[in-house]
Amino acid sequence: MNRKVTGSPTLLLDVEKCKRNINLMASKAKRHGLIFRPHFKTHQSLEIGQWFKAEGVSKITVSSLVMAEYFASEWDDITVAFPVNILEIDRINSLANRITLNLLVENTESVTFLAKHLHFRVNLFLKIDVGYHRTGIDPGNLDLIEEILQLIESSPFLRFSGFLAHAGHTYRFRNAIGIEMIHRLSLAMMRQLKEYFSSRFPGLIISLGDTPSCSLAENFTDLDEIRPGNFVFYDLTQHAMGSNSVSTIAVAMECPIVSIHKDRGELIIYGGGVHFSKDRLDFENGFHFGRVVEKKPQGWGDPISGMYVTALSQEHGKVAVPSELIGQFKIGDTLLILPVHSCMTANAMKGYLTLEGKWIKRCY
Amino acid sequence: MNRKVTGSPTLLLDVEKCKRNINLMASKAKRHGLIFRPHFKTHQSLEIGQWFKAEGVSKITVSSLVMAEYFASEWDDITVAFPVNILEIDRINSLANRITLNLLVENTESVTFLAKHLHFRVNLFLKIDVGYHRTGIDPGNLDLIEEILQLIESSPFLRFSGFLAHAGHTYRFRNAIGIEMIHRLSLAMMRQLKEYFSSRFPGLIISLGDTPSCSLAENFTDLDEIRPGNFVFYDLTQHAMGSNSVSTIAVAMECPIVSIHKDRGELIIYGGGVHFSKDRLDFENGFHFGRVVEKKPQGWGDPISGMYVTALSQEHGKVAVPSELIGQFKIGDTLLILPVHSCMTANAMKGYLTLEGKWIKRCY
Repeated sequence: MNRKVTGSPTLLLDVEKCKRNINLMASKAKRHGLIFRPHFKTHQSLEIGQWFKAEGVSKITVSSLVMAEYFASEWDDITVAFPVNILEIDRINSLANRITLNLLVENTESVTFLAKHLHFRVNLFLKIDVGYHRTGIDPGNLDLIEEILQLIESSPFLRFSGFLAHAGHTYRFRNAIGIEMIHRLSLAMMRQLKEYFSSRFPGLIISLGDTPSCSLAENFTDLDEIRPGNFVFYDLTQHAMGSNSVSTIAVAMECPIVSIHKDRGELIIYGGGVHFSKDRLDFENGFHFGRVVEKKPQGWGDPISGMYVTALSQEHGKVAVPSELIGQFKIGDTLLILPVHSCMTANAMKGYLTLEGKWIKRCY
Repeated sequence: MNRKVTGSPTLLLDVEKCKRNINLMASKAKRHGLIFRPHFKTHQSLEIGQWFKAEGVSKITVSSLVMAEYFASEWDDITVAFPVNILEIDRINSLANRITLNLLVENTESVTFLAKHLHFRVNLFLKIDVGYHRTGIDPGNLDLIEEILQLIESSPFLRFSGFLAHAGHTYRFRNAIGIEMIHRLSLAMMRQLKEYFSSRFPGLIISLGDTPSCSLAENFTDLDEIRPGNFVFYDLTQHAMGSNSVSTIAVAMECPIVSIHKDRGELIIYGGGVHFSKDRLDFENGFHFGRVVEKKPQGWGDPISGMYVTALSQEHGKVAVPSELIGQFKIGDTLLILPVHSCMTANAMKGYLTLEGKWIKRCY
């Protein structure tokens, strides 16, 4: 590693691992004839976006209009994978004037509002609830779907693109079989909608694509588009679900050791909830907020057995250390820690420091 | 309220409630003859800092050197209530050159390092562990205390200020009796140290002061300084502990409703983990991430029975609504939501919007 230690919590990025993750997902999409529209809410960085362009990606997904505005300087086809927020109509119009803007709707109120207030054309996806029960229309609710489609058809500024879903309930599983089952069920539902509506809307597409399904599944028959995001970095949650091997995790937080308590087998680090976020992962002894990995000349290696972040305050973290290892650490050393949820951790930080010592900014 | 709705998640600040919270704590400190050195990690704002100056406050606490640098433009006596991170020695020297800088130490390694690398004088507090077991020296470990004091005495750049503790274990209680007990135990330990060392160090002070203890306790005999922070806004966690009435909570997040699911009694809001943080509070049915309050012409009123934020994704929140109320809400309305942990929520946002429509920035 050519970089200097910054001295405060820093999110390190292994560019090689990250580019490999991008390449593998792009290749998988190509192999299955899928449009690859990656979700950029995980990295939120124009520079990392360029690595996707190098793989031929030209369409992206984001989770807010703020993010869409940030990426619109370099991307001209953006899906905002969040139900239309009618209070942001000015932002929607401004973006729709500049780029191909794809929005999600799931109720008549928003579509009626858009039809009345849009000055530029937008593409609409109907958000379908395939079982996650966060947002979306029940796929069997043909009355509501029909009502929304008629509203869309009667507006010159609205174009129906197809059906979109997020099978976020894959995250409740800790095994490939459960995730594969959710993926197959979701795809089956979306396929029925496609078959039902495609004679009336010949160009409609169906879009799915959480990271666990896209990482593990091999059956994408009739699917048109995938939108995974987390895979760009992966994390310990994905690893616990079986989406990836731990060696593919492309980010690690570097944290200084500020206190050592041998009597209770604990290191205290500079690195807290404001850096990691408070997402946690269940494990044998309760839950943890991250795992310490071995330092290597070229980055990092495997997690060190028994070394977990067991608590986070605003700026402090507590790290459990097996008694036979604690003598190896001293005040002023740093630890490298894999995050539980890389999207939230990346969002908490201002950018990334590559192993070569280069800063990569993110939108904030 | 004179402000316009912004249309995206916005942390509203009721300036009157906030100033009243500041006034009550400042008055309590005065009444007990205590130095009031409030912790600014909660609000992180120079402008809100001015409201403390108006109450005669001249010394503050922060939790990082970054925050100390931000506040050093207007404050010349700052305690960094975090164990010295020797990797930030350049920042320490630069601050020590400009202001009265008070640091926390709890091991010989850091003190030895400071003695060798400081170019300007700093005041040191010995961090004492009064039972929270995060950082600090066991108050009975006189050998270690003595060793550190000798290191301090032998350096021209180090001055011993006294003993400092944070009774963070008060947060494990949900009743005033438990909190009062922890406070009395902590104070008793600190008082012993003061008595033992004050003939040798006549000016030494003892400093305590989490928000629950400072809000609820009335016995501060022999204590010199308090450092509460959260009370500036309070939050639902403090309320659950009995520190404050819910009407003193001075911040609420305004979130647009983007989706309504009457069948399952749920509203989906634009407002997620990147806005609230993921701190949660246990309650009868599991846990929640915030409570919806009534809107009032002059701000907000009491929590609405049964309306809880039950889940947070990156940008989405799920709000449970009793079936008899759900008909009152429509797409494009906003909800006002009290946060579970105001320090983390404030830290996630770029600033505050007052009820009068004025933006107040925070350090970020």
